[in-house]
Amino acid sequence: MWVQKKIHLRSKSRGFHLITAEILDELPELSGISIGVMTVFIQHTSASLTINENADPTVRQDFEGYFSRHVPENEPYYRHVDEGTDDLPAHLKSSILGCSLTIPITAGQLSLGVWQGIYLCEHRNQGGSRSIVVTLHGE
Amino acid sequence: MWVQKKIHLRSKSRGFHLITAEILDELPELSGISIGVMTVFIQHTSASLTINENADPTVRQDFEGYFSRHVPENEPYYRHVDEGTDDLPAHLKSSILGCSLTIPITAGQLSLGVWQGIYLCEHRNQGGSRSIVVTLHGE
Amino acid sequence: MWVQKKIHLRSKSRGFHLITAEILDELPELSGISIGVMTVFIQHTSASLTINENADPTVRQDFEGYFSRHVPENEPYYRHVDEGTDDLPAHLKSSILGCSLTIPITAGQLSLGVWQGIYLCEHRNQGGSRSIVVTLHGE
Repeated sequence: MWVQKKIHLRSKSRGFHLITAEILDELPELSGISIGVMTVFIQHTSASLTINENADPTVRQDFEGYFSRHVPENEPYYRHVDEGTDDLPAHLKSSILGCSLTIPITAGQLSLGVWQGIYLCEHRNQGGSRSIVVTLHGE
Repeated sequence: MWVQKKIHLRSKSRGFHLITAEILDELPELSGISIGVMTVFIQHTSASLTINENADPTVRQDFEGYFSRHVPENEPYYRHVDEGTDDLPAHLKSSILGCSLTIPITAGQLSLGVWQGIYLCEHRNQGGSRSIVVTLHGE
Repeated sequence: MWVQKKIHLRSKSRGFHLITAEILDELPELSGISIGVMTVFIQHTSASLTINENADPTVRQDFEGYFSRHVPENEPYYRHVDEGTDDLPAHLKSSILGCSLTIPITAGQLSLGVWQGIYLCEHRNQGGSRSIVVTLHGE
């Protein structure tokens, strides 16, 4: 059984956003899979996907604090600067965090740990809507 | 052919640990797959999985040295501090290194390079036992 | 439908290289898959794979600039130094960026965003040829 959907995520501010529910709302087919895998792929180079704590929102705030300090804007050696000071750092953060997730499916549900949620990591100041491709495969 | 198992890894000290054998011991079914993929997913947000050198143990010591310097504790801007000074850095390291691995299966074996091994990256001082979900799929 | 191939990439200089075409040239079978997933896995611990901008080459130059500053050589605490000053940093960069990619297949093509390309990240000064294992699976 294969299911594949493109989902257009609502535009979000720069930072880290919990999107587990926004994805699951589009996937009623998940409940029919007893063993399988879900892959989520973001079709952009200045936003990324990761899995982290789904409870305390200060974790997501601290992620923005950390990554914006450790992947700074305006470094003198940056050459790719024509699209704004946030652009090259966004590309770097995207590759550090990654553009895809692979999550097991067990008994009709994502086999996430109790504290895990899916984050959209928006690295641009004005990123706009983001497209993800979700593929479910299983039996 | 689908096989899925939850494996409870033995508790490990903070640092990077080679767990290839600990995983393979649980997967006798691997030998029956001629072409396929194994996904390994850790159900936690303060430990992670990566693949790196399986020989010299100083690589794993240097990994702990590097990540604990570059993702420091006690930064003044951290807000998520109630669970200990190692907690927020553990979340950050988890997302930098990632929570899942996808490894090809060829002729009944993992198609790892000769120097590659699977690491459990334990980022908490007292992480306890960690759960991973392994999914084998192939023909 | 399963297809798996080992591809030997031509030797590349230290830095970030766009290899989408070099991979696709080996995969005529892709056009026969309407829904599926491609996984790409590099069998090395001092080179890695990522997806990022496929247009302006200064992005790839800035990636080398950033990663070589933030994962420096010759740190006094490094112990794994016998194979050259570029070796341990190469292992670290490999785990930060990752050794595998999972990309959806839609209607016989990779479902990449318009600006996305596959990078080989060569972290050694003299890395030589690199082997990747590509697995296509779909219907």
